[in-house]
Amino acid sequence: MTNLPNDARRALMLLSELVEPGDAELDDLLDEAEPIEAVKRIWEGDVPDRLRRLTGAAVSCTPDPADRAEQIAAVTEACGARVLAPGDPDWPGQLNDLHLVCDADEPHVRPPRCLWVRGRHDLAELCATSVSIVGSRAASEYGQHLADDLAADLTAAGWTIVSGGALGIDRAAHLGSLARGGATVAVLACGVELPYPKANHSMFNLIAEQGMLLSEWPPGSSAMKHRFLTRNRVIAALTAGTVVVEAADRSGARNTARYAAELGRVLMFTPGPVTSSQSIGVHRLAREPWEARLVTSAEEVVEDLTGIGGPLATPPPAQRRPIDRLTEIEARLVESLPRGYVVETARLAAVAGLPTEVAAETLERLQRMRWVDRIDNRWRLARGSQP
Amino acid sequence: MTNLPNDARRALMLLSELVEPGDAELDDLLDEAEPIEAVKRIWEGDVPDRLRRLTGAAVSCTPDPADRAEQIAAVTEACGARVLAPGDPDWPGQLNDLHLVCDADEPHVRPPRCLWVRGRHDLAELCATSVSIVGSRAASEYGQHLADDLAADLTAAGWTIVSGGALGIDRAAHLGSLARGGATVAVLACGVELPYPKANHSMFNLIAEQGMLLSEWPPGSSAMKHRFLTRNRVIAALTAGTVVVEAADRSGARNTARYAAELGRVLMFTPGPVTSSQSIGVHRLAREPWEARLVTSAEEVVEDLTGIGGPLATPPPAQRRPIDRLTEIEARLVESLPRGYVVETARLAAVAGLPTEVAAETLERLQRMRWVDRIDNRWRLARGSQP
Repeated sequence: MTNLPNDARRALMLLSELVEPGDAELDDLLDEAEPIEAVKRIWEGDVPDRLRRLTGAAVSCTPDPADRAEQIAAVTEACGARVLAPGDPDWPGQLNDLHLVCDADEPHVRPPRCLWVRGRHDLAELCATSVSIVGSRAASEYGQHLADDLAADLTAAGWTIVSGGALGIDRAAHLGSLARGGATVAVLACGVELPYPKANHSMFNLIAEQGMLLSEWPPGSSAMKHRFLTRNRVIAALTAGTVVVEAADRSGARNTARYAAELGRVLMFTPGPVTSSQSIGVHRLAREPWEARLVTSAEEVVEDLTGIGGPLATPPPAQRRPIDRLTEIEARLVESLPRGYVVETARLAAVAGLPTEVAAETLERLQRMRWVDRIDNRWRLARGSQP
Repeated sequence: MTNLPNDARRALMLLSELVEPGDAELDDLLDEAEPIEAVKRIWEGDVPDRLRRLTGAAVSCTPDPADRAEQIAAVTEACGARVLAPGDPDWPGQLNDLHLVCDADEPHVRPPRCLWVRGRHDLAELCATSVSIVGSRAASEYGQHLADDLAADLTAAGWTIVSGGALGIDRAAHLGSLARGGATVAVLACGVELPYPKANHSMFNLIAEQGMLLSEWPPGSSAMKHRFLTRNRVIAALTAGTVVVEAADRSGARNTARYAAELGRVLMFTPGPVTSSQSIGVHRLAREPWEARLVTSAEEVVEDLTGIGGPLATPPPAQRRPIDRLTEIEARLVESLPRGYVVETARLAAVAGLPTEVAAETLERLQRMRWVDRIDNRWRLARGSQP
C-alpha cells in the first residue's frame, strides 16, 4: 500500500514537483479529489493515460510519496521558505481570476496549485495594492532609469512593485522599490532558494529580507524557458495593472501584457524613441486592440490604476508602510516591542496599555503574520519586521 | 457713391485685408449678402456696430474700395499667386467642415473666406489624399529625422504632406516630401509672397515651384501670433489626418491636434523619450480624450488613415503622381506635348490619336488646371508640370 503524505499541503508540494503548473488533467483531478487522494490515484495509476505516462517515471523511482513530500518540506524549511495554498488567509484571491481566462488553447493559464514564498509579509495584503513593472532584459540605460524611477515613486505612494527578477527592466524596478524601503515581490520561474539569474544574487537576498520571493516550483527547480512564460501569468494576475517599460519586438514582457489585458487588469506602457529596438514592443502594444495606456510617470500610473487624477499626494487606496496594514492594537503591540529585547506577554500588555488576554491573542496573530517571534511565553520582533 | 469691386473674388480679397479670418459678424454678413454687396454695406456703415468700429479706420482712409481691390489683385498676380474662393472647382470642400465645429467660444474656427495660393496644382486634388505633419519649432534631431522620414515615405506612397512652413518639424516634413518630388503644401500665417520665417526662404521657393504655398491673408500681411493659431485650423481641416511629431508642453501643434480631433480627422502622434521636453506634448495627446493614435512609421500612418493594414505597397486611396489624377484623355494630351515645344491643336490631336474638337476642349480644361499654357492656337506644357 502506498505511503501517502500526511497533509494536503505536502501533497500539493509533491504534485508541484511531479507535474508542471497549469496541467489541465491534474487540475481536473484536483477539482474532483483532495490533494492526498490525487497523490494516491497517481501512484496507483488510476488516472487518465496521458497523466499516467507523464508521471510514470517519477512514480516508479519514488516508491514512498510521503517520504518524498517530507523531503520537499524539509528543503523548503531549510531555505527559509513556506508554502501557501489556495484557501490560506494570505493566498492572493486575485490569482483565481486565471480560471476566467484559461481555455483549450492555453490550458496552462490556470491559477497556481500552491506557491513557495520567502519573506515575512502577508502576500495577500502586500499584493492588494500592487502593480507590476516588466520589460526587456537587454534594456537600454533609458529604460532602466525609467523603471527605477517609476518603481521608487510608486513605492513611495504605497504600491507594491511586482516583477520577474530578471536583468534589465525587472532588476531596475525591484531596486527602485527596495531603495525606497519597498516590500517588492519577485515572481520566479525557478526555486526560491537560489533564484535565477545569479547576477541578481545580492538583489534576491535583499528581496527575501525586505520583500518576497515567489515561485510555483519547489526548491531545486531550474529556470526553463517555458517556465518563464507560465510564470508571467502570475505576475499579471497578482497585480492591479502591468507597466511594460521596454520590450523588443519578441519579448516575454509582451506575453505578460497580453495576460494582463485578458484578465481585465490595467495595461500600461512607457514610450521611447521609435528608433530604439527596445521600444518596438511597447509601441506595438499601443496599436493592438488591448487599449494599452501610455504613461510617463508614477502619477499617471496611479491615475490609470485608480481612476483618480491629480498629484501623487492623493491618498492611494492602500496604506503606505507595512505597519499601516496592521490594526491599531496590532500596531501598538509591535511598536511597544523594543528591537533586540525579549519581553513577557504581561509586561508588553502593560506598556501597550492593553488587557493581557487581548495582548496574548493579538501577539499570536502577529506571530502567524511573522511580525513577532515567540520564545516560551516571551516575544520579540521578528527579524526583518519594520515597525 | 462708393466705387465697388467689379467681381466677387476681388470683393473677397478686399474683405480679407479688412477683417481677420473667422470674424463671425462678417461671415454672417457674407451668409446673407454677396461679397460685393457686403463691401457696399461696410463702406456705407450699414453693418452692426462692432463691425463698423472694426472697419471704420480702414474704410475712411480707403475712399475707393474698387481701386484698393485692384491693387491687391495686381500684387497677387505680381507675386505669381492667385485666389481661390469657395465654389471654385479647386476649392477643397473639406474646409467647409469647419462650419461644423465653430461655436460661440471659438467663432474664428470657420472656413476661410478665400485663399491665396502659389503653385501650379489643383489644390482640391492635391489635398484629397493629404496628411499633415506638424510639431515643435525647437524640435530635437530625433524629431526632425522622424518627420523627414515619415514625410518622405508618405510622399512615396502617394500622400500630399501639409504643414505650416515653420522651423523644426514643419521644415523637416516639407523637405522630406520635396526630396521625394512631393507637391507639399505649406499653409502660412502671412502673405504668400514672402513667407515667414526668412530662414526657410529657399525652402519656400522650392515649395512654390514643386508644391503649393497657401494663405488666408493677402500679400503683404505679416505673420502674427494669433494668425498662427487661426491658420492651424486650416491645416487640420485640409487633411485626412494630423501627425504630431514633437510638441513641448505648450505647443501650437497641440492646437492643430485639437482641431483635427474636433473635425473627426485621424489624430496621430509619434512617441519619444519621456525624458525629452519635446515629447511632453505628444505624450499628453495620448492621455487626452481625443483618441490620438501612436504611430511609428508611414505604414502605420497609412493604416490609421485608411483603415487598411499591411505594407505600404497597399494601394493608397489616391493616385500616386500628379498626372495620375488626370483622365485618360487629359493624360494622353499632356504626355503628347514634348517639353519645350509649342504645338498646334490639330497636330497635338493627331499625335494623341484624338478628334481635334475633343483635344481642343480638353486642352482648355488642362489650361484651367494649369497643366498647359496657350499661345494663340498653340499649346505648351506649363512650367513646373510633371507629365
